[in-house]
Amino acid sequence: MDPLLDELRAALGTDAVLTDPDLLRAHQRDEADLCAAGAPLVITRPRDTAQVAAVVGAAARHGVPVVPQGARTGLAGAANAVDGAVVISTSAMTDILEIDPVSRIAVVQPGVVNATLAAAVAEHGLWYPPDPGSWESSTIGGNVATNAGGMCCVKYGVTTEYVLGLEVVLASGDVLRTGRRTAKGVAGYDLTRLFVGSEGTLGVLTEVTVALRPAPAESLTMVAVFPATTAAGAAVAEIATRGLSPSLLELLDQTHLRAIEAYRPMGLRRDAAALLLAAVDTGARAADDLAALAAVCTAAGADEVYAATDAAEAAALLQARRLAHPAMERFAADTYPDGNGGLIIDDVAVPRGSLAVMLDGVARIAAECDVPIGVVGHAGDGNLHPNIVIDRADPASLARGRRAFDEIMQLGLDLGGTCTGEHGVGLLKREWLAREIGPVGLRVHQAIKSALDPTGLFNPGKVL
Amino acid sequence: MDPLLDELRAALGTDAVLTDPDLLRAHQRDEADLCAAGAPLVITRPRDTAQVAAVVGAAARHGVPVVPQGARTGLAGAANAVDGAVVISTSAMTDILEIDPVSRIAVVQPGVVNATLAAAVAEHGLWYPPDPGSWESSTIGGNVATNAGGMCCVKYGVTTEYVLGLEVVLASGDVLRTGRRTAKGVAGYDLTRLFVGSEGTLGVLTEVTVALRPAPAESLTMVAVFPATTAAGAAVAEIATRGLSPSLLELLDQTHLRAIEAYRPMGLRRDAAALLLAAVDTGARAADDLAALAAVCTAAGADEVYAATDAAEAAALLQARRLAHPAMERFAADTYPDGNGGLIIDDVAVPRGSLAVMLDGVARIAAECDVPIGVVGHAGDGNLHPNIVIDRADPASLARGRRAFDEIMQLGLDLGGTCTGEHGVGLLKREWLAREIGPVGLRVHQAIKSALDPTGLFNPGKVL
Repeated sequence: MDPLLDELRAALGTDAVLTDPDLLRAHQRDEADLCAAGAPLVITRPRDTAQVAAVVGAAARHGVPVVPQGARTGLAGAANAVDGAVVISTSAMTDILEIDPVSRIAVVQPGVVNATLAAAVAEHGLWYPPDPGSWESSTIGGNVATNAGGMCCVKYGVTTEYVLGLEVVLASGDVLRTGRRTAKGVAGYDLTRLFVGSEGTLGVLTEVTVALRPAPAESLTMVAVFPATTAAGAAVAEIATRGLSPSLLELLDQTHLRAIEAYRPMGLRRDAAALLLAAVDTGARAADDLAALAAVCTAAGADEVYAATDAAEAAALLQARRLAHPAMERFAADTYPDGNGGLIIDDVAVPRGSLAVMLDGVARIAAECDVPIGVVGHAGDGNLHPNIVIDRADPASLARGRRAFDEIMQLGLDLGGTCTGEHGVGLLKREWLAREIGPVGLRVHQAIKSALDPTGLFNPGKVL
Repeated sequence: MDPLLDELRAALGTDAVLTDPDLLRAHQRDEADLCAAGAPLVITRPRDTAQVAAVVGAAARHGVPVVPQGARTGLAGAANAVDGAVVISTSAMTDILEIDPVSRIAVVQPGVVNATLAAAVAEHGLWYPPDPGSWESSTIGGNVATNAGGMCCVKYGVTTEYVLGLEVVLASGDVLRTGRRTAKGVAGYDLTRLFVGSEGTLGVLTEVTVALRPAPAESLTMVAVFPATTAAGAAVAEIATRGLSPSLLELLDQTHLRAIEAYRPMGLRRDAAALLLAAVDTGARAADDLAALAAVCTAAGADEVYAATDAAEAAALLQARRLAHPAMERFAADTYPDGNGGLIIDDVAVPRGSLAVMLDGVARIAAECDVPIGVVGHAGDGNLHPNIVIDRADPASLARGRRAFDEIMQLGLDLGGTCTGEHGVGLLKREWLAREIGPVGLRVHQAIKSALDPTGLFNPGKVL
């Protein structure tokens, strides 16, 4: 009998304190490759703030680390378990507590799935914009913890722009409420945004107040096909320079186009070097705005530009983009059979003006390191996901992939970019974070971590 | 000879280390009323980051507090001097270091005036939206330190939405760089937004990287005149509920309308209970959008709705709104002659759905406390500025004004609002901040302050 487990069972009930070995294994890691994962002691499923505080208090008394987990769809290992940890799963905290259409806010428990919230607010003609690739399964708590991005960011911003307030259980067991329900507010330090993107290292989220927008007008969608990736990059820069405001501006390179066609044939041009997928949602102005985007793409060298003729075709194009990740996984599996093919999913963001240089650089790195790299990403934000294909069973392939990963990171920083545009640091990029923010930045991070979590209770080894 | 002054002169040159008594007096306070202000030891005017670090280092060695000042247009006393302090004025740090039209960013020193930056980026067809009332004189550094709002926030957000990165001199003398130049980024804690709105208590800003937007389309402007303030509040709620997106939605109550007409006759209706000033900047859609706003106002009970016929008339209406503050100061001076009339300028934000209740409540408080209160504000954000007219020479009037101030704050909190929507905490609202964020929130604030500024070097007594 473990006295910590006894305390947890007393506080939460036995059905919310789980030690089944299969379940423990299932909760070891998120979707990041190449990251270590420990063996947790127990998975807890608290239902409310008081129960989360009880779990945190018990863990603190026993000196056992706490790892918060949402849907474990993260791509940096931030949700990976550490040995002996108490995992706090938000899977039993799925209530939408309030939707207020006048003040345009919603208040939710952290385990609410992004798509569930989106559907609920749509009934009020409202919209929760952040749309990470995982939106159909990832949770608002996880989205907030990682400051998740997505495809709509190019016009509507990332998760942090929509988080008005939080409730957080601190390492002390205290329940902190941050932020507000108002459109504006400057009372004190912006603690809300300090917790957004802190990847579970500063506290456990128990409630999130988000801002909503009116539902956007129906969008018009187009595709531009480029014979060279740099031409696609130049088109993106010109779209930004002209102040055009697409609601979506995504890039797929040839590797991805071919992978998607192999995975699910959709009639994409396999001979193209890159494809830009763009949309506008400006209502009466949309046709004109789409024509302006098309003209820029043509002038930049696109050899084919076509608009979706109806909503079904637009949805199919968006679906092609959403298939990029599974298609590349299949491509990796086909490249290195026997289940050894894998992906290092990278995430780098550069100033929009440097996008073409970054695309060129990734191609050069792929050639130099002799690894296949496909690039997909949120071109309009300068946020790319180079996906490096590796043979997990071959140390040389792994080493080449690692080298390419490092060179991509270094190039991103050299271009004034960041080592992570939206996936986060987790375990995967701790060294790169340190390089990006430098020794002073690291000391400030550590000082804040120590101020809020002096014993290192929360998610030890992550981020810093 | 003061050894600290000698050190400062050695580091900055004598012309940047000022102890003239008139100058010291001029730098004692910002524009907040009712706030204590100390006598500074010296005003320093460093020209670059290294000189700021030198001043901070010297002050720290001598155990002398540091107070950063921009243009001292703040309304909460955050820039007020404290006795014996070294003031760091950013008045010699006025360089626009970079404007990048492709990545849509600008990099500036903190002393650049908001209007100067706005004009400089306009030459590139770009726009820096935050537009506090003081925008023609206030600095970007001050705007960032207070997270300034303004009239365009209702559609375009406040200062913090536009700050991508900062350079800050810390209490240790280290130079911290936060954030990024990219549209997206999640590398580490959001230190940028921790410093935004921290009112000079955590460090001294030395460089700001801001995001820019394409210049908006020309706007169309309208006015709706209401026989009752609650009808105006209801119109604002309905505008939000319908998802209409005005680029400006301001309210002036009868006290302000009369004060403006007395100050500079512009043909505003003195018999109206309230006026809503609204604009749209949606290009080809603008006329339809303005008609939709007008229809909502009429349905809510406006007895007159009219659109500006040209840009000059629109500018005049905007000018009327911008005159609200000086006009109310004149009104206070006329109400209590002999130079004793003054204003307590309040700043409260409530959820948009509670605006009508807040307006009613302020009228009730004015009657109960027997003080004139005029209300002006950013109605579309639920952010109101009740301006309380007092006789500074009459302790009873001051006490009634103070009571009204407190009751307005309490009502705002009771309605789920915040004690400051955009002016900040400074010295004016420390007690109200404590009430709003509670003991746990206050402890977390103090822990962060201690982590970054363990000896309390920066702006002591402010905010906390």
